[in-house]
This record gives sequence, structure tokens and C-alpha cells, in this order.
Amino acid sequence: MKKNILVVGSVALDSVQTIHGRTIKGLGGSAVHFSLSASQFSPVRLVGVVGKDFPQPFCRLLKRRNIDLEGMQVMSGKTFHWKGRYDKDFKNAATIATELNVFEQFKPSLSGTHSKCGVLFLANIDPDLQWDVLRQMDKPRLVACDTMNYWITLKQASLKRLLSKVNLCFMNEEEARQLTKEYNLITAAKKLTRMGPQAVVIKRGDSGSMLFYGKEVLAMPAHPVERVVDPTGAGDTFAGGFMGYLAASADWRNFNVLKRAMAYGTVMSSFSVENFSVRSTEKLSKAEITRRYLAYTTSLTVK
Amino acid sequence: MKKNILVVGSVALDSVQTIHGRTIKGLGGSAVHFSLSASQFSPVRLVGVVGKDFPQPFCRLLKRRNIDLEGMQVMSGKTFHWKGRYDKDFKNAATIATELNVFEQFKPSLSGTHSKCGVLFLANIDPDLQWDVLRQMDKPRLVACDTMNYWITLKQASLKRLLSKVNLCFMNEEEARQLTKEYNLITAAKKLTRMGPQAVVIKRGDSGSMLFYGKEVLAMPAHPVERVVDPTGAGDTFAGGFMGYLAASADWRNFNVLKRAMAYGTVMSSFSVENFSVRSTEKLSKAEITRRYLAYTTSLTVK
Repeated sequence: MKKNILVVGSVALDSVQTIHGRTIKGLGGSAVHFSLSASQFSPVRLVGVVGKDFPQPFCRLLKRRNIDLEGMQVMSGKTFHWKGRYDKDFKNAATIATELNVFEQFKPSLSGTHSKCGVLFLANIDPDLQWDVLRQMDKPRLVACDTMNYWITLKQASLKRLLSKVNLCFMNEEEARQLTKEYNLITAAKKLTRMGPQAVVIKRGDSGSMLFYGKEVLAMPAHPVERVVDPTGAGDTFAGGFMGYLAASADWRNFNVLKRAMAYGTVMSSFSVENFSVRSTEKLSKAEITRRYLAYTTSLTVK
Repeated sequence: MKKNILVVGSVALDSVQTIHGRTIKGLGGSAVHFSLSASQFSPVRLVGVVGKDFPQPFCRLLKRRNIDLEGMQVMSGKTFHWKGRYDKDFKNAATIATELNVFEQFKPSLSGTHSKCGVLFLANIDPDLQWDVLRQMDKPRLVACDTMNYWITLKQASLKRLLSKVNLCFMNEEEARQLTKEYNLITAAKKLTRMGPQAVVIKRGDSGSMLFYGKEVLAMPAHPVERVVDPTGAGDTFAGGFMGYLAASADWRNFNVLKRAMAYGTVMSSFSVENFSVRSTEKLSKAEITRRYLAYTTSLTVK
């Protein structure tokens, strides 16, 4: 089970409007975007909750992609529904509606198989729930988490308790600044590292991402995309490629392995923004990923 | 004269305030920042204008750096003085005062030696003056220009006339968007290329830079800097490293040469932001540049 990834997070239906059109109740949620990306590299087990309205084709889609849904609870009620709109700069989503529905009662409980997964990704949910999940695990070799501004504001103590026990954390630049009260991202990452994680990944949207690991500081650009259609889930898709690659590697503590993980995360997220919902990542072939990975890493090699 | 760079632009005294302190009437101006950076790679001849108040030590400083000042006119009156303040995010300078002084009468006229320089950099000045300079040149092998929002608004026709005759243009992302009315930078760069230049460099501050050349699209990250003191002149320092390296190369049309130029531009600008005015770049050794260039390019090499 060393290479198995357990992901705990939201499964949602997203209605999104951008300059390129709209989608109504498309498949979404942090655990979904993460899983579709990570499963390209390692087997994934998803723990989440949906309502009775959750379309069966979405379950089939996920299963086809080597994602185990044993941990996807179906509760009476409706699935988490998010409705949002992006401006042409795609920087900030304006939330039109957040209907938590069954997600409000989400209380993840792990089976024996779940708890034996070697790698755990705690997607953005209440840090107290993330903590509960972590405590149910049986000595995972790699634990990573994500979070959001909401929890930094409302549950900072819980979040800090969690950070003290994870190996790796993902944050976007605004969140890193909010939590550390530091504007400079190197200074912010140093503070984050002192809170616990050995590695910190700061996501910067179309400005790329940064990795902080020991004394190493690595900035990588986004893979340029000419037609950004929908950025929803790009961060989770990034984390999926990153964690998926790490889970498949023998030693995630090797800096060259972490660098390749950054490149895979970048490439996977560049696909995800090219279409609504999971339309890009659901049908992606390994060959397409490898082709873009080689183009991206070659472009960065200065000879 | 093939490798000689002629730069035409502003020579200024800058008074700048940031969260890390302030400087009063420090050496500045686009032609100065460019020259101190480019002269690390190729001989530079500067054409500009200063007033009688321009401190002699600043002239000596530039001459020590292999910058020819034959074309630096001294007019009666005061030197261009800019006074500004940056917020902690260093994104936009708030101008407190712009005293153009003698710069208002700047009418560059080239000597025979100037006109025979192989490489021309038209720093950000009135596009009609940039055009006048270009017409005085004797078949330069490489011409590049910079501009700013002010000219895009007020002299767009003149700017477009200029763009139709240059090989390369530098713009920051906001300027590229303003001129092309395109938000996406790939789309914007395609439009810019159709206006004339074979290569387009889009500067994105701490988000790095992008190069567009034929079908090639290259995004490079900024070199991470923990203590940003003063970003004034970073764009011109970038262009200086870029153009200096190109001028020293036999074939600037080779994509690998352009990539190295991007890396040198990035590295030079990362030095420039670490101190006020030209305090970082005035004393930089070739060894320091090479060390950071290797660190930067190695970090981007994904093995």
C-alpha cells in the first residue's frame, strides 16, 4: 500500500461561468480534481460524500480512472453545489452560491484499507476534520495538506496543529501571506516550515509555483496556455500531479524527485484550465502528459 | 562596431521610498540602468541628457563600467528628477513628483561613431524621438525598444510606426495588454509580432518574463529574492542583461541564444532590486553574475 494515495476532500457539482461559456453542475470538488490528476501516476482512494442526486456517470468516470470509490459515502440529500463566475483575468472567482448540502455533515471515517495507504492528501476541508483523518492513519510515509483563507481566519489554531504533523503543505500565495503575515514568499515559506512541514509549495496561478525544501528555493513558471477556459480545480490538479508523482517515487525527500513533481503538477494544471469541469483531465492519456512534460522541461533547460 | 550597443534614454536622479528605507537623488534613469547591466557583456555608448547639477561621481561611476559618455549632453538647467514611493507589494510606484527639467528638451543627435553601432536599444522615451534615432543609424544588425503606458495612450500611431521597424520589443504585461487589447499574453504577443518585431519579451515583475519568437513561447520565473529593496529600473536592467548578452553573441536569431539572454536578463534584474538606485549593479563582478546565472539555470533544469 506504499504507493496508494488516500485523498479526503470535497466532491461537488460546479456551475461556472467564464468569458468562454458556462457549465451547469459539472463534476468538481477538491478530491475529484486531485484524484483525476494523481491517478495518472498512482492508485487513488477517494474519501468524500455525495447526495442521492449525484449522477452515476460521474462515478463511472472516476472508477474508469483507477480511482477507488469505496470511501465515497452517499447520504440522503443533495450534493455540494458551488456556483461561481470568473472575470477575464481569471484571478478571483466571484461566488454566486455555495450550497453545502450533505457536505455539511461530512465526517470522514476510514476503513482498514484506507488507513494503510502510504500517502495521504488532506484536501481543503475543516482542519479539525483533516486532523481526525490523520489520527486514523496507520503510519503513512507522506502526508500533505491544503487549506484556504476561510480556515486561516476561523480555525487558525486547528490549522497550525495540523501543519505541525504534515510533511508537505500546499498554499496559494495569498493564503501563505495571510497565515504568516509576511509579504515576501521566501520569508513566508520559512515561517511555514517552522510550523512543521518539511516542504512547502506555494501556488501562484499563472505566475507559476514555488517549492521550499530545506535550503532549496525553486521557482517554476506556469506552462503558458493561450485559451484559459476555467481555472476551477487547477490548484488541486496541480497537487494531484505533484503527489501522484511523489507517491510513485521511492524517495520523495530527494530534491530532484520534488522538482519533477513540481513539473508534473504544473503540466497537469495547465491541462485542467483548458476546459470546464474535468473535461480536460478525465480523458487525458499518459502520452499527452509525457509530451507536454517534455516540452515544458525542455523549454526550461538553458543550454 | 558589431558588438557595440547604443542606448538612448533617460538619465535621472531618483528619490525613492520603500519599506526598507529611502534614497534621495540616487543615480537612475532607463539608459543608466540598462547601461550598467549591458556593459557587463558588451561595450555600451549612452546617449542622454543631464543638467549642470548632475554629480561628477556619477559620470565617473559609469565610465569605470565601460560605458562611453560621449553622447551624454550637459544642458543648463537641472537633471530629470523622479520621486516615488512603493508599497510593500512593490507592484506599482506612486509618483510623488516628476520634474522633467532638461529632459523635456531632449533631442538625441548621433555622432558618426554612434550611428555605426551594431546594436541599438531605444529605452522608454517619446516614440517620435525613438524613430528619429533609428533613422540616424547606419544599418544596425539588431534594434530593440521599450515603451510605457503613457505613449501607448498618447502616441500610439508613432509607437506602431516604430514597432514596424524593430527586431525586438520589451513590454510589461499591462502595456502589452493595453496596446493589443488582449488579456492573454500569448494572444497579445502574437498581435505584437504582427506589428513588426520578430521577438517580443513580456516582463512580469516577480512573476518572471516571457519570450515569444516565431512559434516558440518561453516562460521563465523571476529569480527569487528575499529582500526586495527597490524595484526601480529592474525592467531596464533586465533589458540590459538581455541585450548585452545578445550583442556579444554571433547570432541573436538562435533560440538557445535568446534563452540564455532571458536568463541573463532575469539574473541581472534580480541583483538590481536588492538595493536602492544602482547600488547593486554598479559594483557587480562577472563572477557574481556567473554564480547566480548557474544557480538559476541549474534550478530550472529538471533531470
